[in-house]
Amino acid sequence: MKTKAAIAWKAGAPLEVADVELEGPRAGEVLVEVKATGICHTDYYTLSGTDPEGIFPSILGHEGAGIVLETGPQVSSLRPGDHVIPLYTPECRQCKFCLSRKTNLCQAIRATQGRGVMPDGTSRFSLDGKPLFHYMGTSTFSNHIVVPEIALAKIRPDAPFDKVCYIGCGVTTGVGAVLFTAKVEAGANVAIFGLGGIGLNVAQAARMVGADKIIGIDLNPAREDIARRFGVTHFINPQQDGNVVDAIVQLTDGGVDYSFECIGNTITMRQALECCHKGWGVSVIIGVAGAGEEIRTRPFQLVTGRMWKGSAFGGARGRTDVPKIVDWYMQGKLDIDSLITHRLSLDQINDGFDLMKRGESIRSVVLY
Amino acid sequence: MKTKAAIAWKAGAPLEVADVELEGPRAGEVLVEVKATGICHTDYYTLSGTDPEGIFPSILGHEGAGIVLETGPQVSSLRPGDHVIPLYTPECRQCKFCLSRKTNLCQAIRATQGRGVMPDGTSRFSLDGKPLFHYMGTSTFSNHIVVPEIALAKIRPDAPFDKVCYIGCGVTTGVGAVLFTAKVEAGANVAIFGLGGIGLNVAQAARMVGADKIIGIDLNPAREDIARRFGVTHFINPQQDGNVVDAIVQLTDGGVDYSFECIGNTITMRQALECCHKGWGVSVIIGVAGAGEEIRTRPFQLVTGRMWKGSAFGGARGRTDVPKIVDWYMQGKLDIDSLITHRLSLDQINDGFDLMKRGESIRSVVLY
Repeated sequence: MKTKAAIAWKAGAPLEVADVELEGPRAGEVLVEVKATGICHTDYYTLSGTDPEGIFPSILGHEGAGIVLETGPQVSSLRPGDHVIPLYTPECRQCKFCLSRKTNLCQAIRATQGRGVMPDGTSRFSLDGKPLFHYMGTSTFSNHIVVPEIALAKIRPDAPFDKVCYIGCGVTTGVGAVLFTAKVEAGANVAIFGLGGIGLNVAQAARMVGADKIIGIDLNPAREDIARRFGVTHFINPQQDGNVVDAIVQLTDGGVDYSFECIGNTITMRQALECCHKGWGVSVIIGVAGAGEEIRTRPFQLVTGRMWKGSAFGGARGRTDVPKIVDWYMQGKLDIDSLITHRLSLDQINDGFDLMKRGESIRSVVLY
Repeated sequence: MKTKAAIAWKAGAPLEVADVELEGPRAGEVLVEVKATGICHTDYYTLSGTDPEGIFPSILGHEGAGIVLETGPQVSSLRPGDHVIPLYTPECRQCKFCLSRKTNLCQAIRATQGRGVMPDGTSRFSLDGKPLFHYMGTSTFSNHIVVPEIALAKIRPDAPFDKVCYIGCGVTTGVGAVLFTAKVEAGANVAIFGLGGIGLNVAQAARMVGADKIIGIDLNPAREDIARRFGVTHFINPQQDGNVVDAIVQLTDGGVDYSFECIGNTITMRQALECCHKGWGVSVIIGVAGAGEEIRTRPFQLVTGRMWKGSAFGGARGRTDVPKIVDWYMQGKLDIDSLITHRLSLDQINDGFDLMKRGESIRSVVLY
């Protein structure tokens, strides 16, 4: 079939919207009509050429929501009409990782996904007979996609696509880091480095589970307002308030119980660790640092009881946890609407990247 | 009263054995006759002058066992005749740290202990009218000591002092890191960097809880034999076996579930983290690095599910857990006898330091 998609021809170039050829689903695969997709920093990271694993030409996008149109042979858990969110972290429930009960990092299709192809080693996308690569196993910048069954979370049919598409990455990354990676408990003090889309979702999840002090750190004073609406109780601007670690330690009588780094900067990753409370403070790295960059600290920080960990896709098991997060949004426990600042057509997708680069949007969503 | 003690007059000088003056116990304090004490690397670290917090003149030693002779006012949990192990990490059961249920690092008397004095700010030791400092709140290189009640673990009376004194530091540090900090489970794969006294105790605790592969890493080939007797199933000598991380990852189909750094070297700390399994591997730093040294790694190691933590006194709550470890030794679950390679009188204490420096002893014990 033909479908409309935004093609990334090479690093640094704008996306080009065109009609591409999409092959139907093979065994274990599902054809999905994407109804909406967010534009995420990770798409820009790859498009900019900074991502050492970026492959071109490809169809980017990994934050979508849509409807199942057709299922290939051996697909048993989905049928046409089901509403779904594509998962760049799948959940096969059969690999060593899924069965460990300790991680969400299913490795069932990791190798082929990283090479931009389906699990059988081929692409479903092509243009003029030449293959285009998939991206993160999702490629939601195409109106129609073919995705493995294990990479689709089935969600309730009354959830609006233009909102819950954001759960495909940003919301789950922030909310999940609080709930599944750190397991923040009521009464805990929390620090959040970086109050973009991820940081704001960390904040509202911390509020949802009853955290006490929720300290937001950002260089942009304009973020304070929305941050407070998402649960931040104390705002620190490092340019005005001096040593961030000292300020947090004073504010919390010794340091926070949990900290989250949502920037991708190795300096703030160190601060996030060192502002944790002696004895039990846990620091979670969410942000993605530049290639080759390293974090560092004195081992004394760990020997005296701080813990350093990381979170990918919020530690969420996609098929199990994403539908729950959709429920929490529908129940009003999580606010997504205020975070979606811009709505665009696919033809305007490059404008969405510009808004993000200029820091004017929290999240832009493309509606098909 | 007078008691015999080994005095550390200054950094780098041999200890001098002399009769010192010991004041009796004040409120909340207990007079203990030390019956045996181990000689630990930490004593040497301070004596050598490397410890930036070392204070002289002082009476070193922190790995003892003995008998209560007298209790001061307000002491309720101990009485003369009780057998005890002095604790350099006390357990007051009332401070923020003890009540957190998340750490063993009781801070009730941390400040005065660090300054070499009792909680009331004074020393009980003197010579010719001039005060000598306490060390780590224990000073077990003195035949008699005065210690706060909260820094004494009451143990069963049939446990031999010349063995269980080692539980005052080394045994608990290694065994506790496995049980209380990492919480290693049956079937787990474990890597141990450094097979000295701490590493061997890590090994036997990993065996005790049913670990599967227990991989020991040491530059000294002579350690392999005793390591295997303490539970190590695979021995790696980095000088012979090439890249340690690769070797461990191959041996374990992806990396170990838990690793322990028992050397204090920031390079092996990094290796210990990076040989952990993606998704869930936990690396525990036990060794003490040189002042100012830093650990480093790519944040990707943490974002893909490895966790970096540390352990002090094995994460053990002294008054609660030390008596249990004594029981496990008495029940034959833990071997201490084979680790105590030398027995000395107090007059021979400097020989004990020489044996340690030359790597000839695992543990030397001074018998009073």
